[in-house]
Parts: sequence; C-alpha cells; structure tokens
Amino acid sequence: MNTQQLQQLLESVRNGSTPVETAVEELRDLPFADLGFAKVDHHRAVRHGMPEVILGKGKTTEQVVGIASALLKKSSNLLITRSTPEMAEGIASLAGESEHYPASGVIRVWRDRTIVGKGKIAVVCAGTSDIPVLEEAQLTAEVMGNQVDAICDVGVAGIHRLLDQRERLMHARVVIVCAGMEGALPSVVGGLVGCPVIAVPTSVGYGASFGGIAALLGMLNSCASNVTVVNIDNGFGAGYVASLINRS
Amino acid sequence: MNTQQLQQLLESVRNGSTPVETAVEELRDLPFADLGFAKVDHHRAVRHGMPEVILGKGKTTEQVVGIASALLKKSSNLLITRSTPEMAEGIASLAGESEHYPASGVIRVWRDRTIVGKGKIAVVCAGTSDIPVLEEAQLTAEVMGNQVDAICDVGVAGIHRLLDQRERLMHARVVIVCAGMEGALPSVVGGLVGCPVIAVPTSVGYGASFGGIAALLGMLNSCASNVTVVNIDNGFGAGYVASLINRS
Amino acid sequence: MNTQQLQQLLESVRNGSTPVETAVEELRDLPFADLGFAKVDHHRAVRHGMPEVILGKGKTTEQVVGIASALLKKSSNLLITRSTPEMAEGIASLAGESEHYPASGVIRVWRDRTIVGKGKIAVVCAGTSDIPVLEEAQLTAEVMGNQVDAICDVGVAGIHRLLDQRERLMHARVVIVCAGMEGALPSVVGGLVGCPVIAVPTSVGYGASFGGIAALLGMLNSCASNVTVVNIDNGFGAGYVASLINRS
Amino acid sequence: MNTQQLQQLLESVRNGSTPVETAVEELRDLPFADLGFAKVDHHRAVRHGMPEVILGKGKTTEQVVGIASALLKKSSNLLITRSTPEMAEGIASLAGESEHYPASGVIRVWRDRTIVGKGKIAVVCAGTSDIPVLEEAQLTAEVMGNQVDAICDVGVAGIHRLLDQRERLMHARVVIVCAGMEGALPSVVGGLVGCPVIAVPTSVGYGASFGGIAALLGMLNSCASNVTVVNIDNGFGAGYVASLINRS
Amino acid sequence: MNTQQLQQLLESVRNGSTPVETAVEELRDLPFADLGFAKVDHHRAVRHGMPEVILGKGKTTEQVVGIASALLKKSSNLLITRSTPEMAEGIASLAGESEHYPASGVIRVWRDRTIVGKGKIAVVCAGTSDIPVLEEAQLTAEVMGNQVDAICDVGVAGIHRLLDQRERLMHARVVIVCAGMEGALPSVVGGLVGCPVIAVPTSVGYGASFGGIAALLGMLNSCASNVTVVNIDNGFGAGYVASLINRS
Amino acid sequence: MNTQQLQQLLESVRNGSTPVETAVEELRDLPFADLGFAKVDHHRAVRHGMPEVILGKGKTTEQVVGIASALLKKSSNLLITRSTPEMAEGIASLAGESEHYPASGVIRVWRDRTIVGKGKIAVVCAGTSDIPVLEEAQLTAEVMGNQVDAICDVGVAGIHRLLDQRERLMHARVVIVCAGMEGALPSVVGGLVGCPVIAVPTSVGYGASFGGIAALLGMLNSCASNVTVVNIDNGFGAGYVASLINRS
Amino acid sequence: MNTQQLQQLLESVRNGSTPVETAVEELRDLPFADLGFAKVDHHRAVRHGMPEVILGKGKTTEQVVGIASALLKKSSNLLITRSTPEMAEGIASLAGESEHYPASGVIRVWRDRTIVGKGKIAVVCAGTSDIPVLEEAQLTAEVMGNQVDAICDVGVAGIHRLLDQRERLMHARVVIVCAGMEGALPSVVGGLVGCPVIAVPTSVGYGASFGGIAALLGMLNSCASNVTVVNIDNGFGAGYVASLINRS
Amino acid sequence: MNTQQLQQLLESVRNGSTPVETAVEELRDLPFADLGFAKVDHHRAVRHGMPEVILGKGKTTEQVVGIASALLKKSSNLLITRSTPEMAEGIASLAGESEHYPASGVIRVWRDRTIVGKGKIAVVCAGTSDIPVLEEAQLTAEVMGNQVDAICDVGVAGIHRLLDQRERLMHARVVIVCAGMEGALPSVVGGLVGCPVIAVPTSVGYGASFGGIAALLGMLNSCASNVTVVNIDNGFGAGYVASLINRS
Repeated sequence: MNTQQLQQLLESVRNGSTPVETAVEELRDLPFADLGFAKVDHHRAVRHGMPEVILGKGKTTEQVVGIASALLKKSSNLLITRSTPEMAEGIASLAGESEHYPASGVIRVWRDRTIVGKGKIAVVCAGTSDIPVLEEAQLTAEVMGNQVDAICDVGVAGIHRLLDQRERLMHARVVIVCAGMEGALPSVVGGLVGCPVIAVPTSVGYGASFGGIAALLGMLNSCASNVTVVNIDNGFGAGYVASLINRS
Repeated sequence: MNTQQLQQLLESVRNGSTPVETAVEELRDLPFADLGFAKVDHHRAVRHGMPEVILGKGKTTEQVVGIASALLKKSSNLLITRSTPEMAEGIASLAGESEHYPASGVIRVWRDRTIVGKGKIAVVCAGTSDIPVLEEAQLTAEVMGNQVDAICDVGVAGIHRLLDQRERLMHARVVIVCAGMEGALPSVVGGLVGCPVIAVPTSVGYGASFGGIAALLGMLNSCASNVTVVNIDNGFGAGYVASLINRS
Repeated sequence: MNTQQLQQLLESVRNGSTPVETAVEELRDLPFADLGFAKVDHHRAVRHGMPEVILGKGKTTEQVVGIASALLKKSSNLLITRSTPEMAEGIASLAGESEHYPASGVIRVWRDRTIVGKGKIAVVCAGTSDIPVLEEAQLTAEVMGNQVDAICDVGVAGIHRLLDQRERLMHARVVIVCAGMEGALPSVVGGLVGCPVIAVPTSVGYGASFGGIAALLGMLNSCASNVTVVNIDNGFGAGYVASLINRS
Repeated sequence: MNTQQLQQLLESVRNGSTPVETAVEELRDLPFADLGFAKVDHHRAVRHGMPEVILGKGKTTEQVVGIASALLKKSSNLLITRSTPEMAEGIASLAGESEHYPASGVIRVWRDRTIVGKGKIAVVCAGTSDIPVLEEAQLTAEVMGNQVDAICDVGVAGIHRLLDQRERLMHARVVIVCAGMEGALPSVVGGLVGCPVIAVPTSVGYGASFGGIAALLGMLNSCASNVTVVNIDNGFGAGYVASLINRS
Repeated sequence: MNTQQLQQLLESVRNGSTPVETAVEELRDLPFADLGFAKVDHHRAVRHGMPEVILGKGKTTEQVVGIASALLKKSSNLLITRSTPEMAEGIASLAGESEHYPASGVIRVWRDRTIVGKGKIAVVCAGTSDIPVLEEAQLTAEVMGNQVDAICDVGVAGIHRLLDQRERLMHARVVIVCAGMEGALPSVVGGLVGCPVIAVPTSVGYGASFGGIAALLGMLNSCASNVTVVNIDNGFGAGYVASLINRS
Repeated sequence: MNTQQLQQLLESVRNGSTPVETAVEELRDLPFADLGFAKVDHHRAVRHGMPEVILGKGKTTEQVVGIASALLKKSSNLLITRSTPEMAEGIASLAGESEHYPASGVIRVWRDRTIVGKGKIAVVCAGTSDIPVLEEAQLTAEVMGNQVDAICDVGVAGIHRLLDQRERLMHARVVIVCAGMEGALPSVVGGLVGCPVIAVPTSVGYGASFGGIAALLGMLNSCASNVTVVNIDNGFGAGYVASLINRS
Repeated sequence: MNTQQLQQLLESVRNGSTPVETAVEELRDLPFADLGFAKVDHHRAVRHGMPEVILGKGKTTEQVVGIASALLKKSSNLLITRSTPEMAEGIASLAGESEHYPASGVIRVWRDRTIVGKGKIAVVCAGTSDIPVLEEAQLTAEVMGNQVDAICDVGVAGIHRLLDQRERLMHARVVIVCAGMEGALPSVVGGLVGCPVIAVPTSVGYGASFGGIAALLGMLNSCASNVTVVNIDNGFGAGYVASLINRS
Repeated sequence: MNTQQLQQLLESVRNGSTPVETAVEELRDLPFADLGFAKVDHHRAVRHGMPEVILGKGKTTEQVVGIASALLKKSSNLLITRSTPEMAEGIASLAGESEHYPASGVIRVWRDRTIVGKGKIAVVCAGTSDIPVLEEAQLTAEVMGNQVDAICDVGVAGIHRLLDQRERLMHARVVIVCAGMEGALPSVVGGLVGCPVIAVPTSVGYGASFGGIAALLGMLNSCASNVTVVNIDNGFGAGYVASLINRS
C-alpha cells in the first residue's frame, strides 16, 4: 500500500463508502512491509534492474525449476548459481535461450541486456584453478548490466604479468580479485588502482591453505586500504556488490 | 619521467645534444615507477583529494610527529589512526588546529573541507561499545570529503530501533555497519537498503566472541548479497572504501 | 526399593523373619539406582510421557530394528533420529503405522497422541536448506505431545518476512530457531518475543561458515538475553528441551 | 498506536474533524513499533516484572550511573552486571540500598521482591573457581523473582558429592550448571533430573582449556538431551532464561 | 660390542696381535647402537613378551602380508591394526589361525597366550558407537598378555549405569576409558577408582564434536588427577600403555 | 556407614533398641557414598598414602591457608600447587617446616617420608625454560613417596646429550618428559625406554607454539607407543599418575 | 627489449630514421618486463638449467597435455606434479620416454641429465607412509640436476636407526626431511648435521594430527636452528629450494 | 676424543703404559658424542666459524651473564637474542665492547670479523613495524660472517617501491623477507629473484592477523617455489639458515 492508496482508503472512509471497521481491519493487519518495505524492493527493482537470483546449492532440481518458472513470468534477467547439469537441463527446457556455464555452475536467462554500469568492472584471478570463481563473478556482473574485463593468470609470483595489465586495471571502476593459496593478489592490485577492490578468497590450494582460510586471512589483513572481502569462493557476492558500486 | 620528459630526451638525442649512450643509461635504469606508477599516485591525489594517513600503532611518538611534520608541508588533510595521547600532544604543538578523538585514537588536521562525496555515508553500530570503531570510520570518511550520518545503538535484538531509522538508512549511498558479538546487524541492514554495505566486525564481546572472530564469521556468511567485510576493528578501512565508492 | 519396601524389610528383621545377615547382604549390594534413580526414570516417564528415542547414526539397521522391537513392547511413542531408508523399511515391517521423513531422517511410531504441552512451540528457520533441521525439531516436539507452528524462510536479510509472522511468534510459549550461515535469526527473534528461544545452528553454508561454526558462534554471542544454544544441526535436542519447557 | 486509537483516528476522518492529509501523514510515518512492538515491551514488563539490566563492561562509571539514574525513576528492580567497584560506589550514592557483589561484579537495587517463579531454580557449580559465574546466575534469577538453591563444589571427579545433592536437584524446576575445565557436570546433572538444564561454560582452567572452549564444546556435545548452552561465563544469560522458564 | 669384546680387542692390541690402526678403525666406526641400543630392543623383547605390531593404515595389502610373513617367523604374537578385509584374507592364507575383528579392523595371530599382566585391565566406553575403539584397546591388551574386563554403554548421562559397575572398575589395575561427544566419562571414572586411567577420545559425534576434538579437550582438562590421554581413536596406544603398567 | 555399622544398625532393629522408623530414616537418606564410596576414599588413603592437594590458582591466600590448616590436622603430607609467595608465607606461619619452590609455585609440608614407590621415576625436560614444569612433577612425585631422578636440558636437537643419559632413563620405572616448542622429546625417550612415558607439553615457545598447542599436538601424535599425555604445563598430573604407576 | 635493441632504437632516432613520436610511443608502452624482467627469467634458465614445471592438480588432462606439448618444444626437462594416471598416458603418447611415478603422481621427461648440484641432497622420511612426499622431493631434485640420497623409515621413536645413517646425512649439502604425525624428525636431523634442513610436514596420521597441522607446528617450532619449513606435503617445494641451495 | 687421541690411547695400551682396564674404562664410558658427534660440533666450528648463541627469553639476567661469561672464554663471536636491557648491562660489564640493539633485543660481542659468506644476504621487510624482526635476522647474519643488505618498507601495496630495489635483490645470494599482516611480500620477492627466499612471518597486525598466523599461512602457501618459512618473528632462525646457505 503506497501513500496514494492510503489516501484513497482514508477518503473512502471520509465519504462513507468504506466503514471504519473495514479500514481498521485493513490497516491493522497491514504487513509493515506495505508501509515502506515493499517500496524498498520495488525501488530497488526500478533503480537497479536487478536480476532474480536462485542459489542452486541445497535445492532439488524440481525446486529450482519451479522457482525459475515462476520468476520467468516477470521480465527481469534470471541468474542461478551453484547449479547442477540437471538443473541446467531443466531450465533449458523451460527457457530455451538459457546459458549454462559448467565450470562455475552458473545458469543465466537474459531478458534485458541494457548496460547500466557506468564504467568497466575488471575481474582478475591469480591462477587457472581460480577461474570458476572468477567466472561466477563475471557472469553475475554481466547479467546485472555491466561491461566486464576478465584478466586471468596474473599471480604475484610473476609480478610482470600483472604489471603488463596495469592499463586495463586502471581503466576499471571497480576491480574484483579472486585468489587462493596465499591470497596476496588483492593487496598488489589494490596498490596499483585507485578504485575499490573486492577480494574473493578461493578454496584453491592444499595443506595449510585450509580450504581458503589462508587466502581469506591474507585478504582481511591487506595493507592496501581499498580492499574489502567476501566469503571464500563467493564470486556471486563480489559481482553483485561491484555492480552496485558501478551503477551508483 | 613523464611522456613530455621522454619526448625531450629523445629530441635531444635526435639533435645530438644527448649522446645515445647517455640516453641508454638513463632509460635502462629508469625505475618503472617513473613510467606510470608515480603518475598513478599523482593521479590519485588529484582525482580523490585523499588525505595523508599515518597508522600510529607500532610507531613511536617521535616517528609519528616527524612523519606528520613532513606531510603537513603538503596541502592535503592529515589523518592519524590508533594514536596515543602523547602523539596527539605532539601533533597539537605542530599544528595547533588539530583534532584529537581519544575514544578511537584518531587525530585529524584539516586543510581542505571540500565535500567531494556525491551522497551521504551512513555509519551504523549495534551497541555503545562499538562506538570507537564507528568513530574511526566516521572521522575517516569525513576527512576524505564526505557527509556522514551516524546511527548508534540499533542492535538486532531490538529490531524496531533499527527500523525506526530506515529512512536515514535508505538515503545513504553507502552504509558502514560496525558490530561485535554475533555481528548480525550488517545482514539486517543489507536487506533494508539497496546500496553497498561495508561490514566492520568489532572486538566487542567476551567468551566465544573470540575477540571479534564470531562477528567476522557472521559477516562473511551474511545472507545479504550487498555486504563486503573488512578486518576486525578496521573502521579506517571501511571509511576509506566507502569514500571511494561515494566519490565514484 | 522404595521406602515402603525398606520399611517391610526392616520390620521383617525386627520380627525375626529375616536374618540380619540376609538384610545386610540385600542392603549392601543394593544398586543405588534402587535408592532413587530408578524412581527418577519412572517418575520422568509418568510425568512427561516421554517417547523412547533411538539415535540411528552409528548403528546398523539390525541394531535399530532390534532395539525398536524391544521398545515397542512398551506403550510409549517411539522416535528414531538420523535414520536411513533401510531402517525405515525395517521399522515399517515391524510397526506398519510408522512414519518416515526422509529429509530429516526421522522415523516415528505413535502410541499416544495426547497433547501435554501447555502452549504452542514455534519452530522457525531462515532458509529452505535449514528445513531438515527444523523438521527434526518439529517432529520431536510433536511426538512429545506438543502443538507446533512451523515458520519457514524468514531470514534476516528480508526482515519484513519475519515481521509479518510476529503474531504467530508472539503466541508461542517457546521458540526454536534454526539458522545456518551467519546464524543471526535467533537474535532478532529473541528481541521480538518474551519467551525462551532455543537456537539451533545448522551446517548450511559454505566457505567461512565452517560447517556451522559461524552460526554457532553467532548464536552463543547473541545480544538477546533469552537465547540458549544446542549443537550444530541438533534439531532433536531443541525439540526435546522445548517440550520440557512447554509442559512445565 | 493501538487498535482503539486507530479506530478513533479513522472515525475522526469520517466525521471530518481530521483532514485526510493529516491522517495520511500520521499513518505513513507511524513507526511500526507503534503497531505492536511497543506493546511487546510493555506486555513483557507487565507479564514478567523483568528488571532493568545494564551491562557494565565497556561503559564508563559515568555512563552506568547516568543510565541507572534514569532507570531508577521507574519502579522495577535494577541489575548491573560486570561492574567495577567505582560503579558500585556511584550506584550506592544514588540508591543507598543497593547491593554490590565483588566476586561477580553484580550490583542490584530492589524495588519489588515478589516471587513470580513457580518453582525453585537450582544453580550448581563444579569448583570454587566457578563461583563468580554461579553468583551472577543466582543474583540474576533472584532479582527476577525466583527462589534459588545454590549447590557448590560438586565436580564430577567426586561423583558422590553430587549424588548427595540429588534431592535438591530433583526439586528444582530448572537447573543452571556452571563448570570450567572439561565441562562435564551438565551431562551428569542432565541425566539426574527431568527438567531443562542450562549449561554455562566458565573460563576456569589452564592450558588446553583455552579460556573455556573445552568446557563449551563439552556442553554442546552433551549426551544428555535436556541441556542447552549459553556463552562462556554468561551467568546472566543463564539466570535470565531460567527465570523465563520458571515463570511460564 | 660389549665390554668383554672391547676388553678382548684392547688386549689383542696390547699383545700386538691387532695393529693399532685396525683397532682405531674398528672403534671409530663403531655404530653406537652396538653400545647398548640393540640390547635395548632385545631386553624389551625378553622382559615384555611384546607382540610384533603392524599399522595397516597407509600400507598396501601386499606390504602388510609381506611384513607379517617375515614377522611370523619369530615366535611372538602378531597384532595388525586398522587393517582392511583384504589384509585379513591375506593373513588368513598365511596363518590360518588368525583372528579378524571387522569393527575395529584388528587382526591377531597368537603364538603365546601366557598371562603376564599382574591384574585386570578394565576397558570402558560410553556408547555403542565407541565400541570399535574399545575393541582395539581390548584386543591389544589381550595380545600383550592381559585379562581384560570390557564394560560398555555406561555414559555419564545415565550415571547409575556406571555406578552399577563400580565393583568391576575397582578391581582393575588400570582402566581405559573410551568416549566421544563431550568426553566426560574419564573424569567420572577417574574419581571412582584409585588406579591410573587412560582416556581415549573417540571421533564419535557430530557438529561441534569436531571429529573428537571436543572429547580430546575435555579429557586433557579432566579434574581427576589420575587421567592421562592418548590421540583420538587411539585404542591401540591405550591398550599398549595399560599393558606396560599392568606388567610393571 | 560400612558393613559393620550396617550390621550393628540392623541388629539394634532386631533387638528393638532402634525403632524401624528411625532405621528407615537413617537408611533412606543415607548418602550412597556411605555404601561404598567413602570406603573408596579411605581405601585409597590407606593403600596409597596420598598427600592432600590444594590447587592454589583461583583461590585467595585466606582460602588456601584455611584449607591447609584444616588438612594439616590429618597426618598426611600436604602439597599446594600454583601458589603465590603470599600463600607460602601463610603456610610457613602455620607449619614452620614447610618448603616453598618459587619457580613452580609449589609448597610442601612433610608428615611422612616413607618411600612407597617400587622404582625410580625419571623426570626429563628439554630446555631450562621447561624446568618449572619439571619441578612441579618432581615435587609431586616425591611427596607421594617416590625417588625421582631429574634430567634437564636434553633437547632433541642435541641428541647426544640425551643419549648420554640413557642409562639413567633405562633404570626408571616410569618417565615423565616435559617439553615445549615442538614437543618431540617424549617420542625419542619413548623409543629408548620400555616403560610408560608421561608427556607434559609446556607453554615454552613463541609464535606458532601457540602457548603449548604445538607441543601438545606433537605429543598426542607421538609415534612411540608408550606415550600418554596430560594438559599443557600439568606437571602435577604427570607426577601424580607416575606415582600411581610406580606403586602398583 | 634488451639494451642492444634500446641502443638501436635511439640511434635510429638520432639518425632520423625513426621519428621522435614513434620512439615515444614505443618506449611509453614498453612493458617493464622488457626492461629487466624477461632477463630475470632468461638468466634463471641459463644459470639454473631449471626444468619446466606443471602442477597437475586442478587442471584437466587436456590442459596438462597441451601445456606439456608446448613446453617440450624447448630443450629443458619437464616435471609434472600431482598428476593423474590419465595425464601420464597423455604425456607418454606425447613423449614416449616419459617416466611416471604413481605413488607421488610425478611425471618426468628428461632432456638434460647434467649434474649441476655441487654436492648430494639427502632426502629423509620417518615412515613408509611418508614415502610419496619424499618421492616428490627426490624426483624434483634429480630433474634439477642433483644427486639424491634417499633414507627411509628412520623415525625418532627408533633413534638408533637414524643414528646408523649419520654418515650419509653428514655427507649431504642439504637435507630434506619429510615427516607426519608429531613431525619431530627435522629437529633431530637438524642437530646432527651442519647444513640447511628443509622440513616437509606430511598429512600422514590420524585424529589430532589434523591432516598435517601437528607436524607443521612441530617443525615451525623446531629447536634446531638450521630448519626451515614448507607447506604440508609440499615435496616439490622442498626439492626445488634444496636444488637452489645445492647449486649456489 | 678425536681419532688422533684414540690412536695415542691405543698405542699407550700397546706399549704397556696404559693398562687394558684403564683403557676399557675410558672407552666404555666414552659418551658416543665423542665417537663422532663431538667431531660434528668441532667440524661445524671449524668450517662455519659459528657464533655461540644464547636465547635470552625465559632466562634470568644472572643465568645469561653466567653462560656468556663461560662462553666468552672461547674465541668465537657471541650472540644473545631476545635479551632485556638488564642483560645488556650485565654483558657490557663483562665485555665492554658489546653491542646492544634495543629494538630487537639483540646483544653481540665480536671476536672475529672475518667475512665467510660467499655473497650478500638481502634482508627485506614490508613495513617499519617489521624492523625489529629484520634487525634480528640482519645482526645474526652479520655475526656469522656475512655482508648484509637491508631493504625496508617495500610492502606489496606500493609495488613500485619494491621494484625499484630489484637490482639489490638480484645481487643477493639468499634473501630473507620479513612481513606481517597478509605476509604477501615473500611471494612477490620470490618471483623476482632466482635464489632461495627465507620468509619470516611477523606478529605485526591486528584483528584477523591473529598474532602472525595470517602471515604464516600466507607464506606457507606461497605460489613462488623458492620460498621456505620459519616461525613467527624468528629473525634469528632466518639469519642462521641464510648464513649456512651463503657459506656453502
């Protein structure tokens, strides 16, 4: 219920077409969401053109396809993360034009390819094993209306490879950096660029990498001031926040 | 060495006033910083009006005053974090107009009060014990040219207090959320707003809060997609990144 | 041996029908259980109408069916947790009327459907992936004679969904809250209701959720005073304690 | 704003004494707290006779005394936890009849000594070093209107000392068990009684007790089904929840 | 080389039958093992009648059978721990009289059934899931020449079951206690008996048991003075040390 | 109440000098400890000649002196661990002949210097910083009636120093090994001797020693089969168990 | 661009054949790698005769074979670590003379068998389960041009076996020590030799070995001054560094 | 006893001036160290000119001065680490020419300033707070006869500062890299140089740096193959091993 609807209700009370009791009932049980929160969601949709998102992990194929079927009745883009090949088949039968990326487990259905981001988002990763996480970040940022520049295999132990890409880095408005093992790349990138850097620790590594903890701790302790961090392997979250920044 | 200087050198080679050997020597040993990196730093200063920053922790009063003395010869603002009262006295004797905030240990010297941020930055904290961290974030964002709206004591166990502030939250372009204990506040705030949320775990708590680890883990696992995280008690980092986002 | 039996024994000593030596023997070797503990168990059964419980995990199907077979000779309800489909088949062949819930792995056999709880128990969870744990809590509370109100998918990042359910929450006499990831939901619910809240961290999440540790720590550090915590994924324990509270 | 007030507003709209615009304004900005949440707090106060509580830790003496001064204008009891001797002096000068317990750092001011708990709460601890935590739990439960039975020094390595107290344990309606080191006491007590047991790990111990982690883990893994756990050294939380259970 | 041989060598130097250079050579390269260490091993074998032991884990069936084949040429008993069914078949074909215990993965071949332990060793466990570890301890102690009394399913949450067994416990010269989850049993048993207690944490449990860490920490922090601890699931080590104590 | 007393009571019932009601009362409330447990304690005292022990840590000087004063009325030796100099003064004024060892914080009062141990106990430590823990173990074992042979500064990085002491090690009936840092010494000693080895991790070290965790883990994973472990810095526990083994 | 090329460019500027603008362009965008870094890589190749290395883990068979195919066009040796049998087949079809070591997953292709190491590298391990890690270290060091002396099964619990090998150890110029469980071997070896020791913790063990953490911590805390550490199971890294040391 | 002394003894046996019994006695009790180990130590002294080293931490001033006094009777250099100012005064009164470095707590007494290292050792650190650890490494390497090149404040977030120093780095024969926080510097340096890199994590940082754990994990997971790691803040160990490498 927006202000206009509220006004109409009150006027119908005033002119007697709605009894007081009916209005009390309607207002008393009004979910407060209606007094502002629904607007939040709507506002967000209008302002951001955000896609609908489904986290595939922990859901059955039936559940994912069912939710997707309902969501596709709306006009926004659809993004499914951490999906299985079975889910991809289900979505394909539902919306033939869907894209499936097996490495990252991402499925996308496009409805609106408008670019809303004001600049480029660079997504960078240290090694080839980090590519699935980078891919999740890239696909997310794209489906949210951004141009994305992906720069792979620029780990810190071969610093010249990274430095060779400094032009591309310096043209980005936000940089996402995915790295496993020691997770040092965001610090170096953070020192090269002046924009926000979103660091994504990946679970790549063995032994004392502890499934990404080493990289996570490294990133949280970055000596570069422009670095923030998301959860291990959370390419989606990085792509999402980068998109928010890029459209602000 | 910038492009212009390079051109002059080459022209002096062409017209014979500089021998080839001299030019080879000069170019071969040229620190690459000169081929772009110094420009990076300069560019950043120009574009961002960034303050000079000194981390007081781990330095002696003499070191901090000495560095500050050198930096104050430039025209930019000065921010000193995690300082001691002795450092504050030293800076005061150096630049009488300095501000000292004992709760957070921040010292500021203003040279330029231009607002460069395009919107407001909201800084939010859960309890009164989190205020020193909030203060560090707020003072950082202000000295980087932002209007800051501070909202305190809106912990999740009294959700109506937070909801009462939703208008202020929704008018922010970036939100910084500081919370200790269970660190749940960024998730709730993240769900209320459409902009990026920077979560700062604080070391407030006891027992199984483990000096901020519980809050840190909570924030890394936030179910709100627009949340990124910085180190425990790192109000400075949050204020710094929020400023970058707000001026983009 | 109860007081009455003890009195009879002593009287038979007094009147000479039992020799002192016999009485010494009987009293000396008396398992202390007989001096109160067996009564504990019996008392509990009478007062609480507690079901018999088998933890399926770590037992073979044969063991579970064998134990169940023995227990079903008594008249109380039977609850088997963390069971396999094979166990469910075995129990079904033993007691055709058994219920099997594959998501949580719970098997129930009803003998007594009396409601002994004085109010409702609300079971709440943050996301759909938490439902198996919620189900274990719900099924446990029901088989212990309670009316249970299940409220799903009310995570803190969409706080209005939770607030929409506040009436149901406020009618509960105890609330069980299951949440993974950051585990923030119990704090918010704890602030909304005046009754005890039992928090169940779930292993839902990835990366820095560390199999439920993040949620566990969040709950232990809850800023709501009415929250207590059980082990990760321990829906049974939460349902059990909630039942004790609800019948007191 | 309650239903009656809403009805009055709508009627004044109907009869023209309130313009529609005024009503829209009043309803639109209505904090939702007014639609039920304030009632929650009030309801709680009425139903529970809860004391006002101040956590002294992390606050200055001035802050604590100031908050207490404001709260004491109400008629409810006042409880201050984790306070310093200076705070105790400040409160004493404010309310001469205040009690100060140095071991636990608790301060109490009584306004209402009505017993509202329906039974006894037993508070149990393993060793003399656990007594400060037990004291915090006991003082909390008392000030919330409960009769408390304190049983000290009944650690599991001398099981007969605990068994000697089984009568007292079995007469309790809720049992709080405080233990450091291996934290085994709640499991044993949980097996002896049929009522809910709230386990409080204490930071008592050395070496691999890790400041209470060993006890915390032990309690979370209790093989007794009626045990829930609060944070390390959180006697207040245990006393609070036990009071809620005892008055239900 | 023992003292007698050394004396002979020196005398042959004295009388000239061995040149100085030869003696220097022989003495200089003398492995020190020869000065006592080989005797150590031999001494141990004689005094202890220790079995030969093979750790199956991390070895191939061929390796285990090969080593066993060599060892069986000696007369001592053979114990293989953490073996696979394939290893059991291989050993059976080698020494038909071998015993295989699938639950614990132990294989035994008997050559000498002399009882060398001076008293009984009690092995105790909390729940049925702990039995494989108890079994490894029991089989080890038996094959080292001890009478073993196994007491199962006496967890601390049903303390009367344990107390019913106190006579058996008090007749033991060493007690091994295996427990998972909270690992409280060794503390209670330690308080009941006057002899050494060897605690074996097991990996039984879920969630915050962390694969036996909770039990391990509980046992290391035992408030009973007579408890020492071995590695998680290390029934063999417990049986081995108990045997050493029992034969001393 | 022992068997004899029980018999007397029953006979007085039989001959009428005690009414049945009185006997019922006496037997019903009989702590079960009296039916066997008190005997345990007594038995232990007789068989073991155990000292009374007070853990000074966490107690006030007044409490320690008060407890000591009561205990000294008995004839057994007194051992106080982790005491302060103030406690030592208090005990000295109480029992002039008391010994105080500042390095370990141990106080001893001797009443009975009978040697009850059947052999020697060797206490070994790796470095001089480990000596306080070794001292606690040594003083405990001595006051429990053992001859102790202390071998210091035989760390594994200078293996010949340890090997030089092998004769002394091999003459011990139990060996206690205290080591910090990598905690490797118990494994090496365990391989040299045939008797039980009790390993005591110490908190000696820095950085990744984590206050003794590295040493603790090392010892729990010892490849020597005759090693059991106690808590970090728990010299008392090691001395206590070694004494039990040595007198068996 | 090397110095010669730079000189040529400048001379062509001088003689007018290259316009200044062209030279500016060429120099400005010159990747800095060209100003020294490529030389680094080349220098390394020349000085060290280093093999090309592919980490098989996290790559597909196709990727590994493709990379190998490209690399084999150069003349250096090829080393592939953590490979699968499928990769080995693929490489065999590519370069028939390839070696495959299934235990460690190493594949080698030889092009140059020159010994460049100045002395021997000893590789030592504690138990047979550590052999795969030792093998990775050995094969790496060999393919980098070293003579390697492998010494297996010399764990610290049988110290005489290690001491028997002291001659071989003392002839090494670098020693690599691989050990799991308590990880004590590097400390003992470090005390025996005067050269650098590289410690490799292995994931061999169970329970509190935590996948190699216990060994890792032990090695980091080694009391031998000549020990440095690499990641858990990182035989390759140890072999690589040992080779660098041995050729210096 | 060296070979020559052994020969003399045997000859004196041969010529009758030493009775066989005397020689047996002397040889039998000969510590085996003398049969090879003393040679190790001696050999090391000769070949390496190693200083005597005292770890001040955990020792009293008296102990340190006493040990130093004894050691100074030999001719080698003396190094004392982690010393207090009191120790420095004591050593100064003993050997007036001693050097004291308060930042690192190092004391040195020079007897022999011969350079035995074959090249330079570079010591590098990320920030000024890391300097005490760098200083310990530098002073150690110097006193062991090396030329040391110290390069400070070249953290990875300002990569051009590090790159500016690449010439100095590439002239080193070994590089020691000290870094706290994210510990990324060794990886970058490792990629720049071809020689061994010894990484020293420092305890510099706050929050999730966990006293150096983040840096330690980062270094253990370094993607540069030429990096090995020592304990947190262990500058001495790094300097020691670097010296061994540099003199080989």
